Amino acid sequence: MTLQNDLFLRALARKPVDRTPVWLMRQAGRYLPEYNATRKKAGNFLTLCKTPELACEVTLQPIDRYGFDAAILFSDILTVPDALGLGLHFVEGEGPRFHRRITSEADIAGLPQIDIGPALGYVGDAVALIRQELQGRVPLIGFTGSPWTLACYMISGGSSGDDFLSVRKWLYSRPDLVHQLLGRITEVVIGYCRMQADRGAQAMMVFDSWGGLLADAAFEKFSQPYIRRIIDGLTQSHPALPTIVFVKGGSGWLEKTAATGCSAIGVDWSISLDQARARVGSRCAVQGNLDPAVLLGTPAHIRAEVGQAIRSFGTLGEGAGHVFNLGHGISQFTPVENVQCLVEAVAEFSGQQA
Amino acid sequence: MTLQNDLFLRALARKPVDRTPVWLMRQAGRYLPEYNATRKKAGNFLTLCKTPELACEVTLQPIDRYGFDAAILFSDILTVPDALGLGLHFVEGEGPRFHRRITSEADIAGLPQIDIGPALGYVGDAVALIRQELQGRVPLIGFTGSPWTLACYMISGGSSGDDFLSVRKWLYSRPDLVHQLLGRITEVVIGYCRMQADRGAQAMMVFDSWGGLLADAAFEKFSQPYIRRIIDGLTQSHPALPTIVFVKGGSGWLEKTAATGCSAIGVDWSISLDQARARVGSRCAVQGNLDPAVLLGTPAHIRAEVGQAIRSFGTLGEGAGHVFNLGHGISQFTPVENVQCLVEAVAEFSGQQA
Repeated sequence: MTLQNDLFLRALARKPVDRTPVWLMRQAGRYLPEYNATRKKAGNFLTLCKTPELACEVTLQPIDRYGFDAAILFSDILTVPDALGLGLHFVEGEGPRFHRRITSEADIAGLPQIDIGPALGYVGDAVALIRQELQGRVPLIGFTGSPWTLACYMISGGSSGDDFLSVRKWLYSRPDLVHQLLGRITEVVIGYCRMQADRGAQAMMVFDSWGGLLADAAFEKFSQPYIRRIIDGLTQSHPALPTIVFVKGGSGWLEKTAATGCSAIGVDWSISLDQARARVGSRCAVQGNLDPAVLLGTPAHIRAEVGQAIRSFGTLGEGAGHVFNLGHGISQFTPVENVQCLVEAVAEFSGQQA
Repeated sequence: MTLQNDLFLRALARKPVDRTPVWLMRQAGRYLPEYNATRKKAGNFLTLCKTPELACEVTLQPIDRYGFDAAILFSDILTVPDALGLGLHFVEGEGPRFHRRITSEADIAGLPQIDIGPALGYVGDAVALIRQELQGRVPLIGFTGSPWTLACYMISGGSSGDDFLSVRKWLYSRPDLVHQLLGRITEVVIGYCRMQADRGAQAMMVFDSWGGLLADAAFEKFSQPYIRRIIDGLTQSHPALPTIVFVKGGSGWLEKTAATGCSAIGVDWSISLDQARARVGSRCAVQGNLDPAVLLGTPAHIRAEVGQAIRSFGTLGEGAGHVFNLGHGISQFTPVENVQCLVEAVAEFSGQQA
């Protein structure tokens, strides 16, 4: 099926565009009434992830409502540890939890060898169904958590109230075990991304949500190399697949992140887009980076901030490569009309820039 | 009284030292059994802060145990909003809470004009008593929260589970009110710092604990200028008083932070010390920056990480200026013997560097 809107893929390839493509992290989320209705129908978040028809339904909702330039698979980064037998579940208001966690070398050795197809087939099925239902309107992004970020959850047993301090302790007491675990996760993640690409994902995003907790030197040891392995693995099997790497809190390491070989880096709002472009724009595209709090503001402020970001990135010609996005997931408290305001402002201001 | 150990003040002035001075953020804290005993005696945290004899007792405990090169007043950054009538209290396991919070322009206008002496006299008394009890062993650091960080707590009504999203919303809906509030806080903070200096504080540290939540451009508008006003105000009244500004999560803005005119910047572990020194070392000293998780590791790893940090900063001659510290407060789970290991490693490795 011919792709009707290739703005997103063109921007990732740093080809000229006549306006900046836009999508938002967590665009299928709780700020949308139609999402909440589907979630209610599903009963809980995990059922929503594991039922391809429902995952497809919510994936398409923000495309239908706003005409975003890319769809992203509705899923969760913790499907991989779940498939490895840790028993993912969600406690209302407390985030993800595992029934089992990784506490020892034996736990790592005991992680099962899994066959991605059967173990995570529901994700592949969702990807295939979404592609079919999208009918070529916009490209579909698949995604994974980074090995370090997944290891954080697997060692802590769920989300953390103290920046995963108990996990970071391992870095300075049993770094060998951390590397063992990261190696195992990386193998599975490569297979997981390949499956998504085989089933129809047209770009792949790696979320290193907790990379920013690492010390400068630790990021180079415990996160960056494993992300690079994933990009290498995907480049071997799917050389044309664009990749995006987003390290939340990692604006100090844009060069190191770009050195993973990704097509684009995601940036948070701690850095201006002109600085990000100056540092890595000759090597990769840049995705980001509005503070999600902007979408809780007034239309006038939203327009001003979008305009500022677009002008900060600059021209959109050959070699440019900007994908407009937030610097983190959209807040559940975002008024739906503010997202419309953002989408229109991106089109208006970037049209002037092209 | 003659100061017997001026390593810390020499490092802040970027004069040569024969070893790197060291102290740790939150060095009087829950990892210390003697602190817990005093806290138990006090009944609760706030009484500990508000009773000069007890605040003095816990301030000196880590000096007695480890021989740190600086003492820091035991207090809390929220004493200022408390003095402004917000009613500070602590809920066990949940952090600080206020009985009242700032929700409107009327609330800001309604903040009382306070006389620092009576309103925060217990802090001044603690400073004076600590100076007396220190008997010139090491210098005493006073401190304050930054206006932005204090505003975060005052608007949210306490600590936040969502990175103060409800406060950041104000930046994009009522920035005028945020500036009004920041202006009011700044006035009080300048008086508060001056009082601490008058009573004997020998250096002043500004904690911008939540500066890192701000977008790049917002930091320049809502945090940096108000910190600069504080430094300016202190420079006018106490020109010889060294100042340290620590913006947690602000390693992207070292130059902007240095431009406040501070004597030293605190840095977290997201940046290496050689990079920090290269960026601002010609303008100010650098304090930091070990990941507090290192102190949960093994002695061998602690030594390796300390050695790495010391070598990264480099030589200690004229114009150097390194104060060894963590990149954030010490964890309550830190074994006491690991702190001893750190202190010894700093002396050993920096002695080789001098």
